[in-house]
Formats: sequence, structure tokens, C-alpha cells
Amino acid sequence: MRLYLLPQTFKGEGTVEIRGKDFNYLTRSLRLREGQKLTGRDRDGNLWDLCIEKINRDSCLLSAVPAEKAEERTDALPQAAPLKPIVLYQCLPKGRKADDIIKKATEAGVRDIVLVNSRNCVANLEGKEMSRLGRYDAMVTEAIQQSGSMVPTKVYGVIDLKDIPDDFEKRSAGSQKLGLVLHQSRIENQNNDLLQCTKGFDGTVAVVVGPEGGLEESECQLLLDRGFKAVLLKTNILRCETASIYAIGAIQTILESACQ
Amino acid sequence: MRLYLLPQTFKGEGTVEIRGKDFNYLTRSLRLREGQKLTGRDRDGNLWDLCIEKINRDSCLLSAVPAEKAEERTDALPQAAPLKPIVLYQCLPKGRKADDIIKKATEAGVRDIVLVNSRNCVANLEGKEMSRLGRYDAMVTEAIQQSGSMVPTKVYGVIDLKDIPDDFEKRSAGSQKLGLVLHQSRIENQNNDLLQCTKGFDGTVAVVVGPEGGLEESECQLLLDRGFKAVLLKTNILRCETASIYAIGAIQTILESACQ
Repeated sequence: MRLYLLPQTFKGEGTVEIRGKDFNYLTRSLRLREGQKLTGRDRDGNLWDLCIEKINRDSCLLSAVPAEKAEERTDALPQAAPLKPIVLYQCLPKGRKADDIIKKATEAGVRDIVLVNSRNCVANLEGKEMSRLGRYDAMVTEAIQQSGSMVPTKVYGVIDLKDIPDDFEKRSAGSQKLGLVLHQSRIENQNNDLLQCTKGFDGTVAVVVGPEGGLEESECQLLLDRGFKAVLLKTNILRCETASIYAIGAIQTILESACQ
Repeated sequence: MRLYLLPQTFKGEGTVEIRGKDFNYLTRSLRLREGQKLTGRDRDGNLWDLCIEKINRDSCLLSAVPAEKAEERTDALPQAAPLKPIVLYQCLPKGRKADDIIKKATEAGVRDIVLVNSRNCVANLEGKEMSRLGRYDAMVTEAIQQSGSMVPTKVYGVIDLKDIPDDFEKRSAGSQKLGLVLHQSRIENQNNDLLQCTKGFDGTVAVVVGPEGGLEESECQLLLDRGFKAVLLKTNILRCETASIYAIGAIQTILESACQ
């Protein structure tokens, strides 16, 4: 574990009691013992020096001290500056594919993963949306811990494709926005080069990725009308679970590059 | 199916008889009927207009005519020019992860996938190498067909990390080569920017991706001594199955970009 994600109830107290799944995780999976230290992060992104003070039968007590030099504590965290915000609008794929996409996107530090219903979606979360989102949250927590991500990734959904807002950056109004939609066929005057439109951009990038059957032309058009740019990836036809992490890799690499 | 990959035995005859798995695939999975047409590709990369002439109990007969205008036949194949060659040296991860990486890399049109043994590899193919490579070949065939890839991806291996050649481009001697190794920690004077070292490059790019436990420093150094460049991805710590397709997405997008 690179970083232990503290429970949502933790509000900066000097000690925190851990029960249930997290208790099992720390004491059984990681086999931490009394006196061992680890680094934690709270839900606001602050880092904490933690120490296992006491292990009981079904709980353990951690002491928590604000970490002073964050960058020295979290070993091997490569990035110095915070990653630029990326929002993934992912049209809902079938179960295991969604898991795969959410894990990989979280590792890469995508800030928001918004699940979207589009015309060709085969999957349907109706009636099980809450339990599924709970499962995704657990996966996100695990992926954040594994990857040492400083981005508080969240999964939202399910929204309809027509409800993808043109002002998808709600959190920091006024900041620059760039909306991209991946499509598979050529659209007249809409073959934007991913490198060209992302290079040097400093703001929030949103990317819409279709479901197994792709986006329909009218759906693409609706997004273009809202200011999204259509991007034709210069590769073969990718499955949706490949397309999202492929595109995130490309977008993030270009956004974070020092070479402008 | 975007493209049916013709059997290795096909050498350009006017008709071809299909049995076994492929027969099931065409007639059961795709439910093709007599008289229906499809596009095929032989193992040399040539395209063929195929027609299901006759369906028997356990075989079917296809007629094959060389396709004249390849670019018009294969619907929705996005790229006009051939993709630039990418070689993935993938340190062997555990079973299902290897499957995932090979499928995604094939879809993206990686030319060679070379499986590598490195110090932290947990997986071990000893004794089952042939059967495993056979399984990978079947996966590659399926991924080529699904993605309409024009790249005849092949899986090789398993070789030792120390046997990764500095002249990894054997097929076209004299052509430009760029070797990259992804690493997780900072190496003095070796933090190359992926965009910077890939942009405008016209040749074969090889990328080495570590196993679950990463590459050891001495392994990195060995590759650097052979002329590979160390690249620190500007993201969180990625699992190996995420790192490879993330990097391929970035590398291919930059290589294929019209914006130089």
C-alpha cells in the first residue's frame, strides 16, 4: 500500500479507531503490527503520519499527526505538481468491463468518472444503481491506495447522454474547459488531432467514450452542438474498455508534458 | 467482425474451405448464411473479398477475390496510412493480466509483443510456454478481427530481460529505432519526457514495461546501457496491466499525430 485512505468520518482527530473491512485490510492483508507506521490521506487530500497504537480483536487504534513534508513521505510518488483534472464520461459497458475501466481510470488519477446511458448501452443498472455505485466506491478506494493517487476520484451516475452538460466543470467556474468525444467514423470537418487540441491546454479536460456499440451519429452531433470536439483516434477500432485508458494515457501524457 | 483473418494455409487460392473453430465462428457466432459477403485478410496483410458459397455440416466454402480498393471495403477503418511499428517488451505478469495486455495491445496495432522474464516476475511459463503461446495466438487473431487491425501482431517469448537486444528492429535494418523503458522512480539525468522524445519520430518504437513488482534499478541500468531511454510517466503508480496500454495510447497518439 502506498497510501492508506482514511475513513470518511475522520476529521483530523489525534486518534482514529478502525473497524470492519479496513481493520482486516490493515492487520490481515498488510499484516501491520503495533508500533508500525504508515502514511494516510484524508478525504480532503491532506496527508497524515499514522501509527498503529493498539490492535484489538476486531478493531485497531491509529494515532494521526499531520505529515509535514508530504513529498518526502509518500515514497515513489512520481508527480510533484497535482495532475490536471480529467473527467471521464463513460457510456455504461457490461459489468466486468466497467470495473476494469474504473480501476484503471482511478489509478491514472481521473478526477470524475461519470457513467452515462447512451442508445447502444446494453448494460442497465436500473434498480441496482446504489449497490453498484457502492461497489465502485470500494474499488476506487483500493485503486487510490495502490496507486498512491492524490486525486480524490469519484464515480457518479448514471446520467443520460443528453444530460452531459456543456459546463461540465462545475467545481471551478471560470476555468478553462475542453470537451472531447471519441468517435469511430469520420465526421465532416471534425477530425481533430488529439495532440493538437490538447497540447498546452491548462484546464479541465472531459472525454466522452461510447459503449460497446459506439455512439450514434446523432449522439455525437448533440455533443458537438454543446461545444465538444470530435476526436478520431489514429488507431484501429478499440473496444470501449481499451479506448478509455488508451485515451486517458494520451491526454494525460500530453497535458502533463513539460514540452509545450 | 470487421475483418476475417484467413487461415495460415490460405495462399491465394480462389476458394478456401473452413473447418473447426473458424467454421463455428463464421456460421454460429456471426450467423453468416450462404451468399453473404465479408472482407478477409491473409497473413501477408492482403485483403480479399470473400463470399460464403456453401455451408456444410462441419465446414463451409468461401470464394476469395483480391479486394481492389482496400480502403473502401473495410468499413470504418480509421487510419489511412499504416500505423508506425511499436514493439512491446512486456515483463510477464500473472495469467489474466497477460491476456488483458495482449488483447489491448493487439487492438491498438502493436506489431510485436515480446514476453520478458525479469527479476520481479511472479508468473512463470516454464513447461507450458508452447500451449500458452498457442492460446495467445488465438486471442491475437480474435483481437485483430474485432479491431480491423492491419498490423500482423505476433506474440514472442519468453526471453530474459538481459536478452532484450539493442537492435530490436531486426526486420528493417537501418531504420530508426527508439527504445523506451518505463520506470517508477527518478533516475539521475534520465527523466525523459515521453512527448518530447517521441514527437516527430519516424521509426520503430520499443517500450519495456515491468512486471507487478516493477523493474529493479540494475535492470533499468542494463537497458539504459543498451541505448534505451528511461521515461517517467507523469501520473500515479500504475499496475503493469494499466501501464502498458496507457503508454501505448500515449506513444501511438504522439507518433501518428499530424501536428509535428
